Amino acid sequence: MNSVSTQVHLRSRPTGWPTERNFSLETVSLQPPRAGEVRVRNEYISVDPYMRGRMNDVKSYIPPFALNEVMTGGAVGRVVESSDDALSPGDAVLHFQGWRDVAQGPAEQFTRLSPESPDIPLSAYLGVLGLTGLTAYVGLLTIAEFTEGDTVFVSGAAGAVGSIVGQIAKIKGAGLVVGSAGSADKVRRLTDSYGFDAGFNYHDGPVRDQLADAAPDGIDVYFDNVGGEHLEAAISRLRDGGRAALCGAISTYNSTERTPGPSNMANLVTRGLMLKGFTVGNYTEHQPEFTREMSGWLAAGRINWDTTVVEGIENAVEAFLGMMHGKNTGKMLVRTGAAD
Amino acid sequence: MNSVSTQVHLRSRPTGWPTERNFSLETVSLQPPRAGEVRVRNEYISVDPYMRGRMNDVKSYIPPFALNEVMTGGAVGRVVESSDDALSPGDAVLHFQGWRDVAQGPAEQFTRLSPESPDIPLSAYLGVLGLTGLTAYVGLLTIAEFTEGDTVFVSGAAGAVGSIVGQIAKIKGAGLVVGSAGSADKVRRLTDSYGFDAGFNYHDGPVRDQLADAAPDGIDVYFDNVGGEHLEAAISRLRDGGRAALCGAISTYNSTERTPGPSNMANLVTRGLMLKGFTVGNYTEHQPEFTREMSGWLAAGRINWDTTVVEGIENAVEAFLGMMHGKNTGKMLVRTGAAD
Repeated sequence: MNSVSTQVHLRSRPTGWPTERNFSLETVSLQPPRAGEVRVRNEYISVDPYMRGRMNDVKSYIPPFALNEVMTGGAVGRVVESSDDALSPGDAVLHFQGWRDVAQGPAEQFTRLSPESPDIPLSAYLGVLGLTGLTAYVGLLTIAEFTEGDTVFVSGAAGAVGSIVGQIAKIKGAGLVVGSAGSADKVRRLTDSYGFDAGFNYHDGPVRDQLADAAPDGIDVYFDNVGGEHLEAAISRLRDGGRAALCGAISTYNSTERTPGPSNMANLVTRGLMLKGFTVGNYTEHQPEFTREMSGWLAAGRINWDTTVVEGIENAVEAFLGMMHGKNTGKMLVRTGAAD
Repeated sequence: MNSVSTQVHLRSRPTGWPTERNFSLETVSLQPPRAGEVRVRNEYISVDPYMRGRMNDVKSYIPPFALNEVMTGGAVGRVVESSDDALSPGDAVLHFQGWRDVAQGPAEQFTRLSPESPDIPLSAYLGVLGLTGLTAYVGLLTIAEFTEGDTVFVSGAAGAVGSIVGQIAKIKGAGLVVGSAGSADKVRRLTDSYGFDAGFNYHDGPVRDQLADAAPDGIDVYFDNVGGEHLEAAISRLRDGGRAALCGAISTYNSTERTPGPSNMANLVTRGLMLKGFTVGNYTEHQPEFTREMSGWLAAGRINWDTTVVEGIENAVEAFLGMMHGKNTGKMLVRTGAAD
């Protein structure tokens, strides 16, 4: 069973927006697991903004995807065959073998997810309880040095990370939490589901003006998922001693030209502002504290989180592009649905 | 004696580069000091880059200069008349009454400089032992979180602040210290007098290329006095976890157009970089530690510092403009030379 794995490979490096032609769907026959190996039927795979950077052949904090190999990344599934004592069929696991419906390899590449709460679906480990949630937690609390009473602005606020940032800020005692998103529906979710005090649609007018209306006394913390105009607007509104955690700049990832930076960098000096970028992989020491706090908040019903699910490994590229275009609310996932 | 004070007033707010016409030289008659007042004959007044910002009518960390009033700022002199028990004629004092040859006012506005070392001239209290030195100390050690072994890049490195930054970095165990300056003479001073390991003239080619040649393995800390192209080049060369202290952006102060920011802000995310602006007024709690350390380094002959002196209060504007054009090496001062 499952002796075939359907996988998405990177065929060529995109210039600007990726297209389906940059990828290929491959079918690979699997040998029976050797000693120490397991076979896993994936349930969900994760598509994330950072993957766009890995499609380029540039030095970065993680190496680029290899051409004609599978798109690696986070995935969750269940063990279907095991030749290792550490894992048994039926075990739920997290791994990074990415865009394929069946994964196989040494048992140490698969992390058992246990103990599981019956209320927490496997998909949560790719989102609110996974690196997505940890990114929100570390970015707000460690990087931006959030302090009780701060006014917080989050861009991409209806996305997987942004929606969690806003809720953690409220739980931790923020004075005012403002988010921006790209549709009226998403803006509604900010206040209706994610606990934001105010939100606006960045298509409705200049970010700077809308932010000034939503937070007339300025902001203390900015959590940046977007870059570009949003970052410039935040720098114009950050108060003395304000801090920005730079998590990503999705507005620029598919740009083929150099994007000019904020024209108001002088504010950093006169107002004593800090901009600090981060990637969550350097902050995994916060994982135990995060897991403890987030599990408690989830058990208490204090965090809402959404997933947008695309069906079928063959639609992974479509899911990725949809996420880059903002078609998701919350975490974008692909349900791989491998046949037994 | 000294019953007349010659002063420089701001007459109009400059657009772009200031000219002599934005200022006027005024002669003010002084009444004898009242009870609690002292009269001080200035020896030196300080002209500093930050003063350009105060000529504009914009909200900032210190209020703008008032029109038709004296240009305030740091000055040192000696008490010539006193109607207060706290100060006596002959006492050396530091104050902020700025661009005038004779200052008068309540004794509490004047800080007595004592005990004085015979080796330390009064002018040092406007430079290496004053806010200039504190700016270098705080920016490198507190803001940029300098750590032993770091490779450090300093722009405006032959200036009052920059020349001290480089020397503190070497004393504190920097691996490699590189500076940029605007003339061959200044570049020579970096290595001959200020302990830099390497320097380059930013007029000789792109900063990015010259910095790459001087620090081929990248940098850990950038101390920014210049902004613009220098900041962009530093962001391109900062290694993972690198930090930049933004102290000023003299390249942009007289610009009449918005200056685009660095086009490589994405590096902040992928390399986990921090940019942090500061003004020294928010870090005066470091003054005692700074004074203790710097006095020790000066006594041990471990710090070289230069002053460029312009004679005569009537030439204060010329001195200020010269400093903005980079005509100084080290700290630019005006010797006021009030007649007794």
